[in-house]
Amino acid sequence: MKIRLIGLGKMGENIALNLIDHKHTVYGYDISEETRKKLINTKIEIKNSYKEVLEREGNEKIVVWMLVPNQFVTNVIEDIKPFLKKGDIIIDAGNSNYNLSVKRYHELKEQGLNFIDVGTSGGTYGARNGACLMVGGDYNVVKEIEQVFVDISIENGYGYFGEAGAGHYVKMVHNGIEYGMMQAIGEGLELVEKSQYDVDFEKLTKVWNHGSIIESALIGYMHEAFKNDPKLETLEGRIDDSGEGKWTVEEALRLEVSMPVITNSLFVRYKSRDLSKFSEKSVAAMRKVFGGHAIYKKKWKKKS
Amino acid sequence: MKIRLIGLGKMGENIALNLIDHKHTVYGYDISEETRKKLINTKIEIKNSYKEVLEREGNEKIVVWMLVPNQFVTNVIEDIKPFLKKGDIIIDAGNSNYNLSVKRYHELKEQGLNFIDVGTSGGTYGARNGACLMVGGDYNVVKEIEQVFVDISIENGYGYFGEAGAGHYVKMVHNGIEYGMMQAIGEGLELVEKSQYDVDFEKLTKVWNHGSIIESALIGYMHEAFKNDPKLETLEGRIDDSGEGKWTVEEALRLEVSMPVITNSLFVRYKSRDLSKFSEKSVAAMRKVFGGHAIYKKKWKKKS
Repeated sequence: MKIRLIGLGKMGENIALNLIDHKHTVYGYDISEETRKKLINTKIEIKNSYKEVLEREGNEKIVVWMLVPNQFVTNVIEDIKPFLKKGDIIIDAGNSNYNLSVKRYHELKEQGLNFIDVGTSGGTYGARNGACLMVGGDYNVVKEIEQVFVDISIENGYGYFGEAGAGHYVKMVHNGIEYGMMQAIGEGLELVEKSQYDVDFEKLTKVWNHGSIIESALIGYMHEAFKNDPKLETLEGRIDDSGEGKWTVEEALRLEVSMPVITNSLFVRYKSRDLSKFSEKSVAAMRKVFGGHAIYKKKWKKKS
Repeated sequence: MKIRLIGLGKMGENIALNLIDHKHTVYGYDISEETRKKLINTKIEIKNSYKEVLEREGNEKIVVWMLVPNQFVTNVIEDIKPFLKKGDIIIDAGNSNYNLSVKRYHELKEQGLNFIDVGTSGGTYGARNGACLMVGGDYNVVKEIEQVFVDISIENGYGYFGEAGAGHYVKMVHNGIEYGMMQAIGEGLELVEKSQYDVDFEKLTKVWNHGSIIESALIGYMHEAFKNDPKLETLEGRIDDSGEGKWTVEEALRLEVSMPVITNSLFVRYKSRDLSKFSEKSVAAMRKVFGGHAIYKKKWKKKS
């Protein structure tokens, strides 16, 4: 099958090479000329414009596979639509908010275009060697390209989960669970670090990842990190987030589902990058007022 | 090596058979006559009293391996001590509170006896086929029997983590992390269940366990559960706990470590079995008083 892959970042490049390993033809385009040039000597047939990457041979149906940061998905769809015809298929394999995927599905459907949402997990290694793919959309459309999903997934790592948005929905929840699992691991390790025992974290995570109940890909990644930095001394304790955890909590509010662990794991990330600590200041100030308890004043640097 | 195994429940039986597979001799004793009779035709040399199981040949050093519920550990130690001599080794491989293990270590040390604490993970399957063992105590004592730990562990699944209590400490934290990871998974699945998508949970957990970032032993156990009960319709949403999560939170309080996720995962378990819901009643009653909001009165059954 011929796939038009748009977005050749780390994920896109690896998915493209994985597709090619499975005898698919990949026309690739990235908005960055540098990225296109870098990949010119690979088996990806690099194209230099939307027009080129979407060039139609005869009456063939075009299948577009997007792997672009979610804030650009709407723009890319607008840019490629002029080159598409009724029955063509657009796959959004990035981390889009499922609500937008449902909206895009309906808008494109009105124009005769098919939209499939695909949650992609497993990182760049998975993208290259066998991804985990969670797919949503019209099943009769998914069916036409299902073999491609099976080809580039790890065995048993592909699933179709329902109508439009279902793929991005379960991927969002996957990421929410990931936040909670990661925070649980972080809290446990901090306890060990603060304890009276001088535990070797590289050894601990190795042992935990061989036969224990918390054996997991995440403990494995933790082990890799400790190999390079046994006490994480080179790091600041600041955690970014890329949206999926927040969407999971938004969805918990919409459906009125109690979610203390995933919500707290998101809030810990917010607090980890909050330098002003206004809530802590407020509580300290109140304690001072009603109980005369100590407060800690900033030490202002003298102007020279 | 000859091991005196005390406690032949599910874990003890499987550890015994695992030891025997690795050419160790196992004298086994369980307080239950029924259990002893059940195992009489295995390769475990079943003994019928503490005296028998601790019988000393010549001047040999006795190694006792306890796998008994943690509330019985003190009693068992008192019962076996009369048969032990200076230099003998007692291994507590159950889920004891690490504070008690430290205390037992010091008390036994004063009497010339060696105490090793071993956290055992991996369930009955691991016990039989390769466990995950986290060990604490004097390393010069551990060294004498270390090969036994290596023998019955899965490869890389054994680790020595420090002085007395360290094994039970990291096992306690392992279980605390387990609580948090499990709760994150539960919350995510509930969101999917409440969503507009009719997702096949057996398929979802299968896909999540092949190449995703949340791939883990726990997602695997979840998958097994959905195989037998696709919507968990046969279950009540009530979760027991066996202490280690509570100890983890107690330790967080002692060391003043912030632990929102693990703490919440424990509190969710408490709430899951709280039928009286006094805190919810209190909040509802307050809303009624200050805002006239609805309250829900019990429908009392009429006495016949």
